[in-house]
Amino acid sequence: MTMDSAIKALLFDVFGTVVDWRGGVAREVGPFLSRHNMAVDATEFADAWRREYSPAMEEIRSGRRSFVRLDVLHKENLVKVLRSFGIDADSVTAAELDELNLAWHRLDPWPDSVEGLLRLKRQFIIAPLSNGNIRLMVDMAKRAALPWDAILGAEVVRAYKPSPQVYADTTEILGLSPSQVCMVAAHNGDLAAARQCGLKTAFVLRPVEHGPDQQSDLRAEQPWDYEAADLNDLATQLGCPT
Amino acid sequence: MTMDSAIKALLFDVFGTVVDWRGGVAREVGPFLSRHNMAVDATEFADAWRREYSPAMEEIRSGRRSFVRLDVLHKENLVKVLRSFGIDADSVTAAELDELNLAWHRLDPWPDSVEGLLRLKRQFIIAPLSNGNIRLMVDMAKRAALPWDAILGAEVVRAYKPSPQVYADTTEILGLSPSQVCMVAAHNGDLAAARQCGLKTAFVLRPVEHGPDQQSDLRAEQPWDYEAADLNDLATQLGCPT
Repeated sequence: MTMDSAIKALLFDVFGTVVDWRGGVAREVGPFLSRHNMAVDATEFADAWRREYSPAMEEIRSGRRSFVRLDVLHKENLVKVLRSFGIDADSVTAAELDELNLAWHRLDPWPDSVEGLLRLKRQFIIAPLSNGNIRLMVDMAKRAALPWDAILGAEVVRAYKPSPQVYADTTEILGLSPSQVCMVAAHNGDLAAARQCGLKTAFVLRPVEHGPDQQSDLRAEQPWDYEAADLNDLATQLGCPT
Repeated sequence: MTMDSAIKALLFDVFGTVVDWRGGVAREVGPFLSRHNMAVDATEFADAWRREYSPAMEEIRSGRRSFVRLDVLHKENLVKVLRSFGIDADSVTAAELDELNLAWHRLDPWPDSVEGLLRLKRQFIIAPLSNGNIRLMVDMAKRAALPWDAILGAEVVRAYKPSPQVYADTTEILGLSPSQVCMVAAHNGDLAAARQCGLKTAFVLRPVEHGPDQQSDLRAEQPWDYEAADLNDLATQLGCPT
């Protein structure tokens, strides 16, 4: 530990901040729905799947359930969502369900993400601090060329954001003081939780994460340490050469 | 899980297999010894420091002590070794001790390591499965351009090799069956433990890890799945183009 409060590491929310989960999941869900003659909009299906995300993690955050990785929650949620659209999950083979569940491993980065991360990586330790599990983050990074220095996040600390433990334990793993770590996210709630733990905060605007009619996270709701239009802009603000 | 037993991920021992710990530590210890007018050979000091490595971890493997990361053990061992050479650790500032302890974060790769890993990375998930902690591995990788897909190892599973839990839990994190994972190491003992857990095994000869008079690990002591002269040779044997 040192009293130096200059940023040494940047931790990134991933779903929505670095990659477009909605477009990616819809792209993978579309052919599945067609194959099964399901008259459901793929984007609507993606939104429904995502709506189960936070309640499923809340079971673990609250202590009512032991930690399981996000792949497991995504799979349970998928079965629920199929049912909600009147589809019997038993009519789909296990292999096909598993394959569809991997949609979350194959999300595309926003156009600025790879370039921004490459610039930031030259000056800082960069790692995801996502609720996604390690294998999910590895598959995504290999496919999309996300140049992480390490895969940190929920599975390493066995807790889900925004539990304070996630930010605190990750900072401790990095051997840094909280003020040497900056949380980067498109979500005010994530940044608020990080700030509570003493981390620096960077808001990145992702105005179409939830589609053209997005209502949430369209502006910084607190004066965060940095507010950026995208990851390239953040790199510029942090003094990283192009 | 699938019955496909083709290798999907390669896990690497790091100290000795990917990097030259002895040369690197001696290089960092040298100036420290000179500064303090200590008539001790830097390589002898490195060897003495490394001799404390396994006994320190054994306290944790045996359950006599809770898990602490390797940086902590290295620091305790450093104080012991200084004392064994007649040097009072209290005569050295805390900052200087901490800095010297970071020698393990600044080890150079063997000449074939980076090229070999880059070739292997195109075809497999590659990650360290080292007893080194996450920050140590991150610092080393950034300095030496080791292109890991993730940082796995002792700190993620909170146990030290060769405890079976390390290999088993890491395989589970990767969502793979043991036969889809190959342990790569210059140490027969590491490979034997991995094989006990069902992993595939690749022996890499590092005949001067312990210097010119090395007696151990000069040959494969079991018929491992692969035996390679270096990481480039392993990449070739595994069908990775140059």
